[in-house]
Amino acid sequence: MKSKKDRLIFVTNDDGFSAAGFEAAIEVAREFGRVFAVAPATVQSGRSQAITMYEPLFLDMKRCEEGIEVYAFSGTPTDCVKVAFDNLLKDEKVDLVISGINHGSNSAINVLYSGTMGAAIEGSFYGCPAIGLSLTDHAADADFTAAKKYAREIIASVLEGGSELGRPLCLNVNVPNIALEEIRGVRVCRQCRGIWTEEFFRHEDPRGKPYFWLTGSYTNYEPESDDTDEWALAHGYVSVVPVQVDMTSYAQLTGLKSLLGGE
Amino acid sequence: MKSKKDRLIFVTNDDGFSAAGFEAAIEVAREFGRVFAVAPATVQSGRSQAITMYEPLFLDMKRCEEGIEVYAFSGTPTDCVKVAFDNLLKDEKVDLVISGINHGSNSAINVLYSGTMGAAIEGSFYGCPAIGLSLTDHAADADFTAAKKYAREIIASVLEGGSELGRPLCLNVNVPNIALEEIRGVRVCRQCRGIWTEEFFRHEDPRGKPYFWLTGSYTNYEPESDDTDEWALAHGYVSVVPVQVDMTSYAQLTGLKSLLGGE
Repeated sequence: MKSKKDRLIFVTNDDGFSAAGFEAAIEVAREFGRVFAVAPATVQSGRSQAITMYEPLFLDMKRCEEGIEVYAFSGTPTDCVKVAFDNLLKDEKVDLVISGINHGSNSAINVLYSGTMGAAIEGSFYGCPAIGLSLTDHAADADFTAAKKYAREIIASVLEGGSELGRPLCLNVNVPNIALEEIRGVRVCRQCRGIWTEEFFRHEDPRGKPYFWLTGSYTNYEPESDDTDEWALAHGYVSVVPVQVDMTSYAQLTGLKSLLGGE
Repeated sequence: MKSKKDRLIFVTNDDGFSAAGFEAAIEVAREFGRVFAVAPATVQSGRSQAITMYEPLFLDMKRCEEGIEVYAFSGTPTDCVKVAFDNLLKDEKVDLVISGINHGSNSAINVLYSGTMGAAIEGSFYGCPAIGLSLTDHAADADFTAAKKYAREIIASVLEGGSELGRPLCLNVNVPNIALEEIRGVRVCRQCRGIWTEEFFRHEDPRGKPYFWLTGSYTNYEPESDDTDEWALAHGYVSVVPVQVDMTSYAQLTGLKSLLGGE
């Protein structure tokens, strides 16, 4: 295993470079190696794995000190990963991607909407392990004490033994918003099935024009299943879901071939 | 099976309501039922399954005639689906979601970046089949003749027998940019493995400030495999990949439990 001084950790997030959770991630990452961080210049929550195709993007250095470099980039979280790996760190080997620590949960189906997880997934494409970290508290001044502790433990394990699990690990880690001493430990789980519903409210702007604004509530389709991330969080565990990116519905392949014919 | 007059088809896209491919999708959808369409007001290519959380969104009617209603919405493709299902069509039963026809390929890993597929996936959450349609030609004046023909065939099959394949079908359909008579037919396949690389070029703006702009080339990790969407497209077939949204890496669950300990 590499020593701390030889290790390079890339950090990003979706709440933007000024978020408290981003500082928390940098603080933890610094314990494991040199930190190179590129975060969105503005809030990019819910940006999924979006990329910016039709406009130029600007990079601004925000911090440069021994072992830590931080930039703000005017794109999405996934843009931040791409510009780091394909340009800024082109000649270096990144050992780990950390995305977060997000202010708010990214469990269950949120993995698809999440800019935090979009960036973690993108990072894993470059052949190194990636960890998306989220705390189930949206507050700007959320307490990241427990999240940092579990982040440290998970990062240490991944750096030590993660490479033995086949393809580079991409983890969706969510930490429940309860006191550190109440957390019952880490639980490896699968993505819970469920959806968001009732998701827009409708009002009128000051000039009488109607507008819609996203809101909604999450419906858990399988609250009784004890192997899901939602169950783990509801029962005081840190949930860890390993993520992969083949979205093929293999179970439907044969039936679909019969339905559509062709070869 | 429902008759055309009882059927409701929801149409959206990511190129925006004024794209030629959107008109092509509406034209095909109208052959199968009443059309209700909400498309982004602006180009939303590469928006993945992004949602708009921190700003209000506006809806404008663009067209209203017998059997066709079209709106432009100032959000992402996924926002368009949500506002339709959760507000505008709240009391109706949608029979099919069509997203597209996209100007450009959404095969392989592009399923993750694609706003077209983000909307199709979102549509499938509401319990009806969803079809993302893409033509591998980015041109604004692309010829959708072949794409429309195969869209018709696939839509007819899905409406007739799709409900027998378990969960609602969500299909990623890509049509190669070749003459209709050269297309060899439909091929049901899996998502090809591969990534985009070298993805930003760097220049200076008129005032000397450096900027980055996304570009890149796709690398196919398995060009020899004949069961992928990339292979199908390269060999003159319309590729059809059934999509599901559980991103759990089941193959890594056991190893990860050993690595991280806990329960």
